[in-house]
Amino acid sequence: MDHTPAPTGRTRLDSYVDRYAARTAGMTASEIRALFSVASRPEVVSLAGGMPNISGLPLDVVGGAIADLISDAGPTALQYGSGQGTPELREQICEVMALEGISAHPDDVVVTVGSQQAVDLVTRIFCDPGDVVICEAPSYVGALGVFKAFECEVVHAEMDEHGLRPDALRAAIASLCEAGRRIKFLYTIPNFHNPAGVTLSAERRPEILEICREADVLILEDNPYGLLGFDQAPMRALRADEAEGVIYLGSFSKTFAPGFRVGWALAPHAVREKLVLAQESATLCPPSFSQMAVSSYLREHDWQGQVKQFREMYRERRDAMVDALEDLMPPGCSWTVPSGGFYVWLTVPPGVDTKAMLPRAVTARVAYVPGTAFFADGFGSSAMRLSFCYPTPERIREGVRRLAGVLEEEMELRATFGATGTHEALTRSRYDGPGSDQA
Amino acid sequence: MDHTPAPTGRTRLDSYVDRYAARTAGMTASEIRALFSVASRPEVVSLAGGMPNISGLPLDVVGGAIADLISDAGPTALQYGSGQGTPELREQICEVMALEGISAHPDDVVVTVGSQQAVDLVTRIFCDPGDVVICEAPSYVGALGVFKAFECEVVHAEMDEHGLRPDALRAAIASLCEAGRRIKFLYTIPNFHNPAGVTLSAERRPEILEICREADVLILEDNPYGLLGFDQAPMRALRADEAEGVIYLGSFSKTFAPGFRVGWALAPHAVREKLVLAQESATLCPPSFSQMAVSSYLREHDWQGQVKQFREMYRERRDAMVDALEDLMPPGCSWTVPSGGFYVWLTVPPGVDTKAMLPRAVTARVAYVPGTAFFADGFGSSAMRLSFCYPTPERIREGVRRLAGVLEEEMELRATFGATGTHEALTRSRYDGPGSDQA
Repeated sequence: MDHTPAPTGRTRLDSYVDRYAARTAGMTASEIRALFSVASRPEVVSLAGGMPNISGLPLDVVGGAIADLISDAGPTALQYGSGQGTPELREQICEVMALEGISAHPDDVVVTVGSQQAVDLVTRIFCDPGDVVICEAPSYVGALGVFKAFECEVVHAEMDEHGLRPDALRAAIASLCEAGRRIKFLYTIPNFHNPAGVTLSAERRPEILEICREADVLILEDNPYGLLGFDQAPMRALRADEAEGVIYLGSFSKTFAPGFRVGWALAPHAVREKLVLAQESATLCPPSFSQMAVSSYLREHDWQGQVKQFREMYRERRDAMVDALEDLMPPGCSWTVPSGGFYVWLTVPPGVDTKAMLPRAVTARVAYVPGTAFFADGFGSSAMRLSFCYPTPERIREGVRRLAGVLEEEMELRATFGATGTHEALTRSRYDGPGSDQA
Repeated sequence: MDHTPAPTGRTRLDSYVDRYAARTAGMTASEIRALFSVASRPEVVSLAGGMPNISGLPLDVVGGAIADLISDAGPTALQYGSGQGTPELREQICEVMALEGISAHPDDVVVTVGSQQAVDLVTRIFCDPGDVVICEAPSYVGALGVFKAFECEVVHAEMDEHGLRPDALRAAIASLCEAGRRIKFLYTIPNFHNPAGVTLSAERRPEILEICREADVLILEDNPYGLLGFDQAPMRALRADEAEGVIYLGSFSKTFAPGFRVGWALAPHAVREKLVLAQESATLCPPSFSQMAVSSYLREHDWQGQVKQFREMYRERRDAMVDALEDLMPPGCSWTVPSGGFYVWLTVPPGVDTKAMLPRAVTARVAYVPGTAFFADGFGSSAMRLSFCYPTPERIREGVRRLAGVLEEEMELRATFGATGTHEALTRSRYDGPGSDQA
């Protein structure tokens, strides 16, 4: 193989610059990506990434299930399959969703390449340039990236510790309707929100459904963490009480393993048909092998017992993070206390810009994702997302200690020299683009 | 699980109809899809599908490679990976491409969910609605589906037995330029064309490159079958002689197995960056597990020896089909004789409409894909694609016998009662949409 240096013809490449589609302008590399390659050095405690900790998975069981799969059903597992996904997996997906109160038919499930692809396909079939998507403030960086890539306008609606605020949603819808804008859907993560760490309360759920029903706004319910609650049975999904107005997205990335890239969408029947056509256009079909590997694991293993172990492991890490924050954070900081999932949302004292501070944090060997990554409108610089999913409890405590040190220095500097520039409660700065979530 | 019948709320679903994106109108179900579910009954000889025959794969070797993968590298294989694909696989892909004279750097390779996704991502980053893509006449149904879904206009350029005709390409470019249209790229399948069964001659390749260079038209070289030539060493890829003006697409679906959905794009450096961003937006990353399984197979198995076996098996089937066509087809039919790949393109006598005839063929227990599926402009009803990849030689001969019978009846009816409606050499009828290629 010839390893000639690749970019020999950069000069000619400029000729492509004005040939890209308009949507490609919305696909930008994260400004913080370069920093994350530094942050992946072992001496840095990364509280930035969203990688599940799958070290607890029984590799012998997984390996055995896959070996059986090859010997029992190799020719099918290695072949093209249906664009909608395998019938067995779609049945199993219905059983998984039943744990959240959803009654669904396998015919209405479309298997996707991770639930990321489900967001992509739903946006592809619904959104023309300029269409509006309502998202929580903050919202999942990977979904914001899709909406941007399809040239949607994202309008954020505020959350509090009980999740999306009905009054904020109602106001957003009213002002958009007044402006004659077309709302394509509400994108919401009701459980153990990424990045906010909050959960939509049971009391608010019927109200959110009712607001959307009244305004005829479709709901895109993204629920990758729903079974990872620490303190209680899974919450009832929005989709459980509204079959026609909700597209529900799920994933095996957090309950089993992300390396297979198996997620799904459950959609009203007509929408499902469009999703299958979009899936066929995008990939012909999702990987048979991945789907059958997941099916085999679900069938032959006590997967719910494994999820229980995951929950306990993540609860221990959540506790480590929250305890460390309580012990170590300087005054003026506040944070959410998640009852499940992977993330804490930390708000820093006025004047501190989390994005500007990130290089200093990485120098102090701790990494996080600045809040600006989770807003399409430039807000978020007074907050950050801290992940407790991947590092050990000891590393989490050490990471929080380092972060507290950096914040204290930052605040001291500000106390001594004063803030430069004006300050707002939620300082505006630029959105960071997709892709940083796995870093 | 509650198996309530799904489409309870069809009436309300109509409310979604006017909410889809404009591009969704371009995603239509194949009219022939219903027929294909009938055609999949065992008594029907399907000459319609494009499924590779992977029965020759050594399942014990594949199973062993994957078991090793789980025990040696499970935590990596089951985890998220890079949006660009794993470094090892990208190096191996460069070694595969070297067999066709391509000298490339792994940095410029992006792994995709089958090469179908590569077509999708390239189109996504380059094509605005109304942009022109030049395709061969006929062209791959799955690519036409993507171009349609991104609201491109497809302009076809004629082929003959030596592949794309330079004069036709030149004329298409000239007339588009004259009309002030923007050509985003030429989509071409130089080797063992799907569906035409022809190969771009070595003599024409520099000329096609020169025409595109002069007109500053990017080439999208789709090459899933390049290593499946029956009579000679692999042809030199277009990309081998033009690094900056060509995006090359490859796949392991035909040389190994489609069930992993692993393909790739090799692109000029700046374009590659955009492709990675598009991939991250579409799926976060391609499946680690699939990629590492392919790597492990390539590393530990004599994969080129396996490809040689595939070639011999497909050559035997090509021979069976061509011999049967010579022995059995009624006068007035003509067909291409492919020197590799999966497909023969059969042209029927004037007046026979292959799409109208398909239900009668399925009744006679033989299936094919009508030519109209491979044209964006309605042409193709006097032709059909016949696949020899999947059925045994005996079944191929029996299928051709049945098809000849149906054609003879059709021609007799026409001789007796005359053709209904007007006839053109290439009768116009509607395009069939994507998705039929796996049937």
